[in-house]
Amino acid sequence: MGATVTLGLDEVRSLARAALMASGADPPNAEAVADVVTRAERDGCASHGVFRVPGYCSALKAGAAKGDAKPRVERRAPGVVFVDGDHGLAPLPMALGRPMLAQVAREQGIAAMAIRNSAHFAALWPDVEPLAQQGLLAMSFVNSRAFVAPAGGAKPLYGTNPMSFACPRAGGHAPMVWDQASSAAARGEIMIAARDGHDVPEGFGLGPDGQPTTDPNEVLKGVQLAFGGHKGAAIALMVEVLAAGLSGGELSYEADERYTGHGGPTHNGHLVIAMDPDAFGAEAFLERVESVFERVLTDGNARLPGDRRLANRARIPKEGAALPVKLVDEVRAIACG
Amino acid sequence: MGATVTLGLDEVRSLARAALMASGADPPNAEAVADVVTRAERDGCASHGVFRVPGYCSALKAGAAKGDAKPRVERRAPGVVFVDGDHGLAPLPMALGRPMLAQVAREQGIAAMAIRNSAHFAALWPDVEPLAQQGLLAMSFVNSRAFVAPAGGAKPLYGTNPMSFACPRAGGHAPMVWDQASSAAARGEIMIAARDGHDVPEGFGLGPDGQPTTDPNEVLKGVQLAFGGHKGAAIALMVEVLAAGLSGGELSYEADERYTGHGGPTHNGHLVIAMDPDAFGAEAFLERVESVFERVLTDGNARLPGDRRLANRARIPKEGAALPVKLVDEVRAIACG
Repeated sequence: MGATVTLGLDEVRSLARAALMASGADPPNAEAVADVVTRAERDGCASHGVFRVPGYCSALKAGAAKGDAKPRVERRAPGVVFVDGDHGLAPLPMALGRPMLAQVAREQGIAAMAIRNSAHFAALWPDVEPLAQQGLLAMSFVNSRAFVAPAGGAKPLYGTNPMSFACPRAGGHAPMVWDQASSAAARGEIMIAARDGHDVPEGFGLGPDGQPTTDPNEVLKGVQLAFGGHKGAAIALMVEVLAAGLSGGELSYEADERYTGHGGPTHNGHLVIAMDPDAFGAEAFLERVESVFERVLTDGNARLPGDRRLANRARIPKEGAALPVKLVDEVRAIACG
Repeated sequence: MGATVTLGLDEVRSLARAALMASGADPPNAEAVADVVTRAERDGCASHGVFRVPGYCSALKAGAAKGDAKPRVERRAPGVVFVDGDHGLAPLPMALGRPMLAQVAREQGIAAMAIRNSAHFAALWPDVEPLAQQGLLAMSFVNSRAFVAPAGGAKPLYGTNPMSFACPRAGGHAPMVWDQASSAAARGEIMIAARDGHDVPEGFGLGPDGQPTTDPNEVLKGVQLAFGGHKGAAIALMVEVLAAGLSGGELSYEADERYTGHGGPTHNGHLVIAMDPDAFGAEAFLERVESVFERVLTDGNARLPGDRRLANRARIPKEGAALPVKLVDEVRAIACG
């Protein structure tokens, strides 16, 4: 990635906050976004760290996301927390709604939080890990702009539609958290292949003619495919219904129609489901689940999801995050107006 | 499949019930199992219809499933329905718990039903479709015996771990329902390839040496793989935690350890989550979701999940179900003791 510069995590946070505020975010919104950016860098997730800041700032400057959004959290049913994001970025509504979601899940056994009028541009694991750190199981679903074809189809309809799952662990281990797109590849991965002149593997997408191609430029003009064939497309469809349908947020094709080319996030919908294992009364839940994780960890090369992130988390807070000089210069320039 | 005989759906139901009762099921249990068998035949799902009856009967005769099980349904938390299956087959506890699950979902917005001490051997769509017919969204998760390796691993740990999703539709359409294993292939598909001497595609499994193979006999001695690589394995892990962990039902490796070779279902765990779109207050939920389905249906060869089943459902109740003579003879012999 060329020349890098190493920033401490406090510097990452300050830099992100300054760029966001220079782009029109008020302190609560800037702080919430800077927090997910900093947690991504702490875990070595470069694709969702400082790399995303220019996009957040573009959306703010283009008026596609309100910098002073004041999300409203309400309990719409005994088990349902509803958050209207007031047309801002997703980190603040997610952070403001999460404590009520956790409380309701403990009280009811299961609870859901739907968020709309909000633009999600981050990884999903930061949304659910805090719930598992409190002993809750959590799943989340987010849609995006339309990039992915339905099973057997050739036109973009679903977003890359990630979902995540977080499970608390026994013995003081950090929660097991996974977070994955319903598309075979991240959009950024295809864009990088196009930039660098590399082919992409078969199965990533179809060209504008509806035919399979390994040319990333053709895929970008055509359509991405779901992971795992029709099964991944079924997951993408479910995410579309749960994230955008239930919340009343923008469906992926709607977000696409309204996109103005600013390069940042569009509005979409988000759903988080939290469950309290204690309310189900299953004996020794943590220990039994841990017995599954132990079997994963003793099966040759098998790995638990998220283990690379956790290894980075042990190292990066001490060593700092190595970032491309070009990217840091770009974000500093935004911060200086 | 050799010579076939066509049975009306009433005959399918009577035949299944008679075989189950001759194997030790009492009338409520026999009726509940016969109902899921008959609905599978109605929808042309041969793999989960009469084909499963000998296995159910074997489990009953081997004492692996109690024929006179009396499931107990309780509301364990405001949003949690808990069913103890009393060590019987899954259709009765599923049918007895579902009305309370639907009621609680309407009251709370979201509800979960966990079932344990129960042996699930059917498709998952019959469990969730009745909820969507009442206007609810539903997801379900079931584990099984250990057949599938974790991501990067080579030993069986997860079941084929299916999950399902059901969504009501506008305009009098039957709900959109999908139901899919987390494994790349159904176990039965590999067994049939072994019987018929065919290879299986790459990606279905590894041999006992941990190496990829297309020999179905090697896969059966070795381990199946999840669909879609590590992403499908992450889904399988989630299903294991949700189905067996939350319910306190048998984990897949535990079910495997206790399996006595009867050829029928083992105990496992099941989780069903139901959500009421009205409680979320999303405007025009059905119409907006339908606009996504319409786009699927107008994208060339794209199809909605479950459309083949619904086409069969329009035809088979009139024409009857074509079943292998050998299978019908086998089940009749069981029914005659």
